Amino acid sequence: MTENTDFETGLKEECGVFGMYDLDGHDVSRSIYYGLEALQHRGQESCGIAVSDTSGPKGRVKSYKGLGLLSEVFHTGQFDSLSGNIGIGHVRYSTSGSLNINNAQPLVLNYLKGSLALAHNGNLVNALQLREEMENAGAIFHTSIDSEVIAHCIARERVNSGCIEDAVKKACDHIRGAFAIVLMSPRKLIGVRDPYGLRPLCIGQRDNAYVLASEDCALHSIGAHFIRDVKPGEVVTINSRGEISSEFLDDVVPREKQAHCIFEYIYFARLDSCIDGVEVYNARIRGGASLARCYPVDADIVAGVPDSGLAAAKGYSEASGIPYAIAFHKNSYVGRTFIKPSQDERESSVKIKLSVIGSVVKGKRVVLVDDSIVRGTTIANLIRTLKHCGATEVHVRISSPPFLHPCYFGVDVPSNKQLIASQMSVEQIRKKIGADSLGYMPIRELPDMVGDLPICRACFNNEYPMEVPDHEIRDELGD
Amino acid sequence: MTENTDFETGLKEECGVFGMYDLDGHDVSRSIYYGLEALQHRGQESCGIAVSDTSGPKGRVKSYKGLGLLSEVFHTGQFDSLSGNIGIGHVRYSTSGSLNINNAQPLVLNYLKGSLALAHNGNLVNALQLREEMENAGAIFHTSIDSEVIAHCIARERVNSGCIEDAVKKACDHIRGAFAIVLMSPRKLIGVRDPYGLRPLCIGQRDNAYVLASEDCALHSIGAHFIRDVKPGEVVTINSRGEISSEFLDDVVPREKQAHCIFEYIYFARLDSCIDGVEVYNARIRGGASLARCYPVDADIVAGVPDSGLAAAKGYSEASGIPYAIAFHKNSYVGRTFIKPSQDERESSVKIKLSVIGSVVKGKRVVLVDDSIVRGTTIANLIRTLKHCGATEVHVRISSPPFLHPCYFGVDVPSNKQLIASQMSVEQIRKKIGADSLGYMPIRELPDMVGDLPICRACFNNEYPMEVPDHEIRDELGD
Amino acid sequence: MTENTDFETGLKEECGVFGMYDLDGHDVSRSIYYGLEALQHRGQESCGIAVSDTSGPKGRVKSYKGLGLLSEVFHTGQFDSLSGNIGIGHVRYSTSGSLNINNAQPLVLNYLKGSLALAHNGNLVNALQLREEMENAGAIFHTSIDSEVIAHCIARERVNSGCIEDAVKKACDHIRGAFAIVLMSPRKLIGVRDPYGLRPLCIGQRDNAYVLASEDCALHSIGAHFIRDVKPGEVVTINSRGEISSEFLDDVVPREKQAHCIFEYIYFARLDSCIDGVEVYNARIRGGASLARCYPVDADIVAGVPDSGLAAAKGYSEASGIPYAIAFHKNSYVGRTFIKPSQDERESSVKIKLSVIGSVVKGKRVVLVDDSIVRGTTIANLIRTLKHCGATEVHVRISSPPFLHPCYFGVDVPSNKQLIASQMSVEQIRKKIGADSLGYMPIRELPDMVGDLPICRACFNNEYPMEVPDHEIRDELGD
Amino acid sequence: MTENTDFETGLKEECGVFGMYDLDGHDVSRSIYYGLEALQHRGQESCGIAVSDTSGPKGRVKSYKGLGLLSEVFHTGQFDSLSGNIGIGHVRYSTSGSLNINNAQPLVLNYLKGSLALAHNGNLVNALQLREEMENAGAIFHTSIDSEVIAHCIARERVNSGCIEDAVKKACDHIRGAFAIVLMSPRKLIGVRDPYGLRPLCIGQRDNAYVLASEDCALHSIGAHFIRDVKPGEVVTINSRGEISSEFLDDVVPREKQAHCIFEYIYFARLDSCIDGVEVYNARIRGGASLARCYPVDADIVAGVPDSGLAAAKGYSEASGIPYAIAFHKNSYVGRTFIKPSQDERESSVKIKLSVIGSVVKGKRVVLVDDSIVRGTTIANLIRTLKHCGATEVHVRISSPPFLHPCYFGVDVPSNKQLIASQMSVEQIRKKIGADSLGYMPIRELPDMVGDLPICRACFNNEYPMEVPDHEIRDELGD
Repeated sequence: MTENTDFETGLKEECGVFGMYDLDGHDVSRSIYYGLEALQHRGQESCGIAVSDTSGPKGRVKSYKGLGLLSEVFHTGQFDSLSGNIGIGHVRYSTSGSLNINNAQPLVLNYLKGSLALAHNGNLVNALQLREEMENAGAIFHTSIDSEVIAHCIARERVNSGCIEDAVKKACDHIRGAFAIVLMSPRKLIGVRDPYGLRPLCIGQRDNAYVLASEDCALHSIGAHFIRDVKPGEVVTINSRGEISSEFLDDVVPREKQAHCIFEYIYFARLDSCIDGVEVYNARIRGGASLARCYPVDADIVAGVPDSGLAAAKGYSEASGIPYAIAFHKNSYVGRTFIKPSQDERESSVKIKLSVIGSVVKGKRVVLVDDSIVRGTTIANLIRTLKHCGATEVHVRISSPPFLHPCYFGVDVPSNKQLIASQMSVEQIRKKIGADSLGYMPIRELPDMVGDLPICRACFNNEYPMEVPDHEIRDELGD
Repeated sequence: MTENTDFETGLKEECGVFGMYDLDGHDVSRSIYYGLEALQHRGQESCGIAVSDTSGPKGRVKSYKGLGLLSEVFHTGQFDSLSGNIGIGHVRYSTSGSLNINNAQPLVLNYLKGSLALAHNGNLVNALQLREEMENAGAIFHTSIDSEVIAHCIARERVNSGCIEDAVKKACDHIRGAFAIVLMSPRKLIGVRDPYGLRPLCIGQRDNAYVLASEDCALHSIGAHFIRDVKPGEVVTINSRGEISSEFLDDVVPREKQAHCIFEYIYFARLDSCIDGVEVYNARIRGGASLARCYPVDADIVAGVPDSGLAAAKGYSEASGIPYAIAFHKNSYVGRTFIKPSQDERESSVKIKLSVIGSVVKGKRVVLVDDSIVRGTTIANLIRTLKHCGATEVHVRISSPPFLHPCYFGVDVPSNKQLIASQMSVEQIRKKIGADSLGYMPIRELPDMVGDLPICRACFNNEYPMEVPDHEIRDELGD
Repeated sequence: MTENTDFETGLKEECGVFGMYDLDGHDVSRSIYYGLEALQHRGQESCGIAVSDTSGPKGRVKSYKGLGLLSEVFHTGQFDSLSGNIGIGHVRYSTSGSLNINNAQPLVLNYLKGSLALAHNGNLVNALQLREEMENAGAIFHTSIDSEVIAHCIARERVNSGCIEDAVKKACDHIRGAFAIVLMSPRKLIGVRDPYGLRPLCIGQRDNAYVLASEDCALHSIGAHFIRDVKPGEVVTINSRGEISSEFLDDVVPREKQAHCIFEYIYFARLDSCIDGVEVYNARIRGGASLARCYPVDADIVAGVPDSGLAAAKGYSEASGIPYAIAFHKNSYVGRTFIKPSQDERESSVKIKLSVIGSVVKGKRVVLVDDSIVRGTTIANLIRTLKHCGATEVHVRISSPPFLHPCYFGVDVPSNKQLIASQMSVEQIRKKIGADSLGYMPIRELPDMVGDLPICRACFNNEYPMEVPDHEIRDELGD
Repeated sequence: MTENTDFETGLKEECGVFGMYDLDGHDVSRSIYYGLEALQHRGQESCGIAVSDTSGPKGRVKSYKGLGLLSEVFHTGQFDSLSGNIGIGHVRYSTSGSLNINNAQPLVLNYLKGSLALAHNGNLVNALQLREEMENAGAIFHTSIDSEVIAHCIARERVNSGCIEDAVKKACDHIRGAFAIVLMSPRKLIGVRDPYGLRPLCIGQRDNAYVLASEDCALHSIGAHFIRDVKPGEVVTINSRGEISSEFLDDVVPREKQAHCIFEYIYFARLDSCIDGVEVYNARIRGGASLARCYPVDADIVAGVPDSGLAAAKGYSEASGIPYAIAFHKNSYVGRTFIKPSQDERESSVKIKLSVIGSVVKGKRVVLVDDSIVRGTTIANLIRTLKHCGATEVHVRISSPPFLHPCYFGVDVPSNKQLIASQMSVEQIRKKIGADSLGYMPIRELPDMVGDLPICRACFNNEYPMEVPDHEIRDELGD
């Protein structure tokens, strides 16, 4: 599968979060911008930054949010009004059809003790229940995102808590699901991760500034070094003296019951990231090698679908000894706002984003590696183009198992009707896309990708790490 | 005083509200747009519309808000996504320096019984106290406007109320200050007015649709006819059967203690509006006549400063027998986003918005009528230009008394330091602006403008109709 | 007729021009902006400014143009890149349906002697013929405006001319029609006016800077004083020593054959302007007086349609003794980009721009004065609204004769099919618009408006001051 | 060198051209858009499309141009007004500092025989001389681009030519330099290529439509197939009967004197293009192999700088046997409008666009392949980062010789002062960038890249294929 674009209905990650606290008092908004830019692959539909000055009056939070990419929303001038040495940021992919600026994050709130800003990656499974409880007690909600439910929980707990981190811990004891959260109170930066470790979060440092980020690639992009991952179920607090304190949620689960999202490694996370001790590049190389072991084939070249299939193709090549090839050119100028082709041009328009380098594939038997098949349209077009350019055989290898079950933890899997894998057998899919052979990653091979890291496989095998609702929860809070 | 512009620091009204419920199911968003356009003089800094479909699922509210004039924020395409037969709208002038889209109205909320949209004109005097109480109980606030405090009150009361209008009534029993509110629940349109009648609100009808609006000019602009004013302290509810029910707040005050804002008549309200039985045009004509009686002068022509001084000038002319003249041309193309003049062009740039028609004033003794003097800069420039064009004398008549005290009820009076009247005597002002004589409306003459309508004169005489804080309340909720 | 708006098909002026040369070296772009803002009524569809620095390298012209009002096109930042002490500007109304930025002025050109910028108000009758001649000699044209034909003529003549003003004179000897032109060469500012004086142009001064402008209101708006009108057929040149030289075109006509456009006085020009010695305000007052003489009526009040009918109404009132009334409120916030009403709201939407002040007209016999009737829709709506508000009679007086013939000199008269006057008798029009009586200005009364100034009456009586084509010339150069 | 971005001063191509004529009458604007999108790498600063309908009135050309990428300039709605079955398009990189919409192409002109649209890639060496000749004869110029000189030449020749293609041929006999031109007359589509073949142009076909394009990748992107390259010195005309006629310029040179630009193969052209019979991918593979032969080294992996160094790295890997590695992640979301880092963040910000995959390079000796070194800053940063990530050695191989002389044919080589190669020896450069070894492609190896194709090497060895000016010609026509 190629990267997320408007004309591709694929899997989508929901968010990236970033926080920074500069204890020397330097402004952090530009660094947050760069950090978010390194996380842009996790969400392209809205973004925002909220900052505060810890030496100023409590609760003066300045924020700016907008719909679109960071480069579309932010301009140099805006940073003048975003001064402050503590701040958080967010990039978002919205699961609901209609975009709504109201739902953009960070959420910035006033409550008992002043101001609070919150950015959340993940999805709760008990948000509706909690919201109804609070509405019954007279609460009002401005958005349709579960992150606001978390904010309400924190505000309620704050009434009887001695400090903000206690309130956050108590609030997070109530919520269930996947969450990686960064929070900014007037004088503290806080990070929380759900007990199962479903969503990533790590800690870094640059000089006398501390950073929280969804992936360590965002640390490196601003010149910070990685300290450690936030542990599943951990609440990490950085205070104004630069002390990092840590406590754990009540429901922390033993390591073997943790459930790290395998899709972070298959394609959400950036190729140069390392999450929970597993390097994404290496995981994909090992995935490609597994495919080579499980589905060997006599072929001339191995080619990956840019960009997410390239590393797995390299792994397949290394394991099989079949040469790795650069078979595609990706046009990086094709806009996100796609000009719709007229009816009779639709057929030809599929070649716009990816084009085949004819001299590479002509007369060759090609192993084509991608990370997933959603509807099958894109891969079918690539196979047809490869053959049109002279490839004699095309053997497709997919570095994930077929996904057959809904994800309740923040991955936007299309509904069953759109998923080719839930409608057809592997052989039927092979025929439909025009491949000479087709192999999906076996579920049993997944652990090999990530070493001993316990992973969530629910979307492949229906075994969820916690109790989940019996219905679709997307949009249940409104849209 | 000329109309509100970026380069003029004058008195400013805070808001206009509009609501409509079409019982035949027709879309109302376009009519709300036109209605708000007729109220645009009450607020030019942000605007918004929220609509719902009473035949659809409860709580599906569609809204659109933005910074700027209606014509800048709304475009034809947006109305396609604003379908629904019940809706409310708002135009706003923000009292805080920095504009913030978060503070735009209508507020759209989810709470116990689904959705609620709220638009508010006025200012509360106990908002901070109420907000602190609620924060202490665990509430969170997304905005810095007192309107959100009202929404929270309603949500709390709704828990133990049988219907929305009861909750609204109970909530409004807690708030104190000036308020004219329109609310939309899934099936009802509600209007509330504070017990003193400080801010206007009226009811109209077009075919089988009911309308609530700050001024009746907004009714006429959409072809609706005026039914009646909402009474001070009244809660009016229009339900899905077209029934209009009414109840009153606990603290309703007797008519003689009501305190209608006199500035609505002097210049906030539109010339063609009629509020609480008093026609604005007639009030200004009578004001001009009072000035003629109190400050007669031997002159050749009477000229009003466009647009707000024209009617009072007409009244002065009719009462004195001195001919009414068209002495100014107003350039309607001068942009709101004013191109700043370079230093040496500043002097000449004052003539851009208003220019004098030389042949009208040459050799003439002029009575110049305006509604107020804030800093005195504008009127001084006009007098200088009139004399430059050949006027032999300029006698200034102001149709309001000097304002000397802060308004807590929604009028944005500049601080004392900017107010010329609180720094100088009338004779000093006359000299400074270069007038040959100067007369302010005496406070005792104000009742004559509005008949027996009880009015608030606090900004002139420091006698407030209710207890007010002992400090500046603008921005006390943040900005 | 109300002012030009998108939803009104009325008479339209084609352009306003402005030029400035500061001999002390100060930047002129901001002053040009203000000057154009005072001329914005002459054209709202595109605008532009071109400047140069006479102390810099020859031919470095900086320019900025755009579609829309000055306040929409220009922002403060742009003036930083528009430095220079000589410059010209233009506001334009395009006669063709489709707007095209290519046709915006000033035209900025390179030719034999460096750079040239040109801004033109008016219309040529021999542009097509000249363009074909030049095309036959190998010329190319980038625009569809006749102004580019003038530029080509100048460039051709420049080859054998000793100085730019000679080339301009020779070029203007070839062109026929209506023209008021300002030109900027590297070191000179030049103004030209056609021999008939059809379009206005005047000279002013501020300190050591000279100014050319379509109307003197633009001089006053920047603090310059009026020196004199450019004479019909005159070429005025201001050089770098501040000398104003003058020569005349070969075809200069005697004063009695001049043909000043009467519509400048009836409604194009601004109320505070004075053109060729005749004050616009006074001309309209005299027009209103003529109507009172020609069409007396027994009535209670006289009301003008804002803004262009107000002065004539005043004239009618003064001559008849019937009191002048403020009967309408004009909503200055109604946007140019009009939100289209749905079908069933169309009827009511006509009240949005102008509303009647009920208490003024109730029970009154009204004389309603406007400057023209094009299709009759607007006046019919006003009459209906006046009667709805209680006016017992409405007597319409129009301060221009019915126009029946095309204008070839820059006035965009709608085609005959749209003109009510060419389709119906006066009595038929009266009935259709619902007036109790109707009187148009008699052609014989026009001279009285402007003293002894010889005027063009061709659109009323088909007597053109020069030979004109036998076909429609609008868009003949493309669109 | 990475791709063109705002913060990188590298080599820049000047333009891409595209033309299409659908003989069945289908609209071509969307196909032109897609074709230009495939050529966007040739110019990102402005773009435009001009279309006409061959069955409509002659000379009705509709066009749309703007500054920025196609995806920024064009929106779906614009295609509604760009109907027509013949058209041309252009993407441009402007060599002058200030962008100017006037200079955007296609140029659309009116001349003797109606309309003409022209799009040009390349640079003339006698444009100034021709323009002065024409100005002396009275011509005027609206732009500062040499393409307008070509248009003038065509218009002049058209006067005495029987058909447009004759005029084009005669005009192109006058101009000297590099040019690939597509022209649209009312009924014909014409392509011209300079006698030396400096700039590419090819012909394609889709059903009953003919296409001209700078590279064949643009043909494939719209589903057209390649027919042949336009020959150096050839004028190709496609008429309304679908006939392709051909004639040659007078100055056509023998094949051995042709001078195809080698930089098209090194990095301008797209990886999947084939120009004049040489596949770009293969040329780069052979270039990499040459580097391996000339500069062998004992290393562990070969890595190319994305995207332009990847294929040469593959060639080096294949020839040397050293494994090819994926060592970098390119962040495709980094905006073109780069948020400037504050002073103390500048150092770290270089990692934003390209990041190193640590696990790939750790402990490895790396051969790093790029296509050129301009200032050396970027490669120095990459080397530093590679070593920071654990690379033990970095051996740099550059697939082009050092460029030392100006290009007069359309490549925007930075001035000598910015070129590191003209300031330092290879050893000095090696030290400065921190490489362990450095090898530039020897000039003598270049022919091996492109077979027997005669190439221009002037920027390396100062041997120009034609007489060139003795001064810098960029901006000589103004800016």
